[in-house]
Amino acid sequence: MRFAKGHGTENDFVILPDPDGLLELDPTTVAALCDRRAGIGGDGVLRVVRTSALLKTETLAESARSAERSEWFMDYRNADGSLAEMCGNGIRVFARYLVMAGLLETDTVDIGTRAGARSVTVEPDGQVTVDMGVARRLGEGRARIGGGELVGERVSVGNPHLACPVEAPVSGLDLSVAPEVDPGQFPDGANIEVFREAAPGTLEMRVHERGSGETRSCGTGIVAVAAAATSPGEGATWRVRVPGGECTVFLDADGVRLRGPAVIVAEGEAHLR
Amino acid sequence: MRFAKGHGTENDFVILPDPDGLLELDPTTVAALCDRRAGIGGDGVLRVVRTSALLKTETLAESARSAERSEWFMDYRNADGSLAEMCGNGIRVFARYLVMAGLLETDTVDIGTRAGARSVTVEPDGQVTVDMGVARRLGEGRARIGGGELVGERVSVGNPHLACPVEAPVSGLDLSVAPEVDPGQFPDGANIEVFREAAPGTLEMRVHERGSGETRSCGTGIVAVAAAATSPGEGATWRVRVPGGECTVFLDADGVRLRGPAVIVAEGEAHLR
Repeated sequence: MRFAKGHGTENDFVILPDPDGLLELDPTTVAALCDRRAGIGGDGVLRVVRTSALLKTETLAESARSAERSEWFMDYRNADGSLAEMCGNGIRVFARYLVMAGLLETDTVDIGTRAGARSVTVEPDGQVTVDMGVARRLGEGRARIGGGELVGERVSVGNPHLACPVEAPVSGLDLSVAPEVDPGQFPDGANIEVFREAAPGTLEMRVHERGSGETRSCGTGIVAVAAAATSPGEGATWRVRVPGGECTVFLDADGVRLRGPAVIVAEGEAHLR
Repeated sequence: MRFAKGHGTENDFVILPDPDGLLELDPTTVAALCDRRAGIGGDGVLRVVRTSALLKTETLAESARSAERSEWFMDYRNADGSLAEMCGNGIRVFARYLVMAGLLETDTVDIGTRAGARSVTVEPDGQVTVDMGVARRLGEGRARIGGGELVGERVSVGNPHLACPVEAPVSGLDLSVAPEVDPGQFPDGANIEVFREAAPGTLEMRVHERGSGETRSCGTGIVAVAAAATSPGEGATWRVRVPGGECTVFLDADGVRLRGPAVIVAEGEAHLR
């Protein structure tokens, strides 16, 4: 099985080139590939498949029909083998792989995902900008963490976030215990971000991802804190520092774009049994 | 840079084929390769170099001179880039790589290490047996862990161990906090094992490695508990279950051999900057 490995701000992925949709990617295989000791290791798998090939075996949800016109489709799987709709770090790595493999003819392309088509632009220096759609601000929310309480703004970026401004540097906070949210506010749980403005125009943040614990980076979380830090109704550009690196978020009337690094660190052949 | 990735009972390694000793492997490069998110990921690096090439740039310690007659040398580096002498799981993976790459002409071969030459036998089913030298039993030792105390036997397998028999299944123990040892007994610290005889001839163990925390497996630790479980002066064969798999230890008058799996999971090209 051919593979590549790449990461965006240290959110890392096993990339499986499968243009003609010939791979049968069951959850056991995905989990074996993502195992960090007995496999290649990664937060998830990005299968690189032509949309036309994917559509022979899978029907997209109504909300994702815009993906049908994309040449390439990002078939994203979580490390446990479950399907995921979109990943802001993953799609940058996916696009970078397409360029490296000579599969893109233009710098800007629509990539199909289970959340619909997403416009992506790959720059010569390895930075990739992706259209993240709209960040919907839903009002105040709260989470309990350790003995204290976090107060922030609920933001939906397709998935649910609670973006909490804090006073102290985020490096000093303890995110080892999962924050508890109100099931009335977050029936499906939430990703919890803590952030502060470290310098004019620059946010620093850390994130506790639903089901994964603290991670080095979360693309939708970066978008959520940038939205929460922006005066309602206004546009803004924020640099956002996460433990795994730095991204830039552009907010305007049309929606949100996320710009950040994407690196392919290895390519090869995986020997799975 | 060509690489392979492999593991022995989930102790995993980045393998760098460098027969002619042309790679300059500084600690920064080793750490970048072993980084589990921004690199390939591994507990260490195994550089595959001809002993004749290694000896052009490095002089072996007097105690390791037996390695000078080996064709192949395992240049082992810890994930932080520091040198290590020997690794019981690593040398099995190293030998398995030699076979896969067509670099071994016999099933049994002496491999050079910074602890001297080690005889290794590769079986067709992927099991590899390695001569681990001698396990020296040094009498009772103690460690504090959480609120309690562990009592066991001090064993040297080139590196220091405290092998502690326990009554309850080892899966229920909390090894998240580093055990504290008496600096008088262990001036350089120690690897701490807890073990019990789960069935006749079968030990189960967990290990807290000095400087690394709890790991999925430790080759010298497996040898240490097998020695501690054996009546003094007698020979024995033990199956030893660790969280990452199972090995067999053969103890006799000549010393100790460790037999266990070794798997190559991927091969390819690493793109490091």
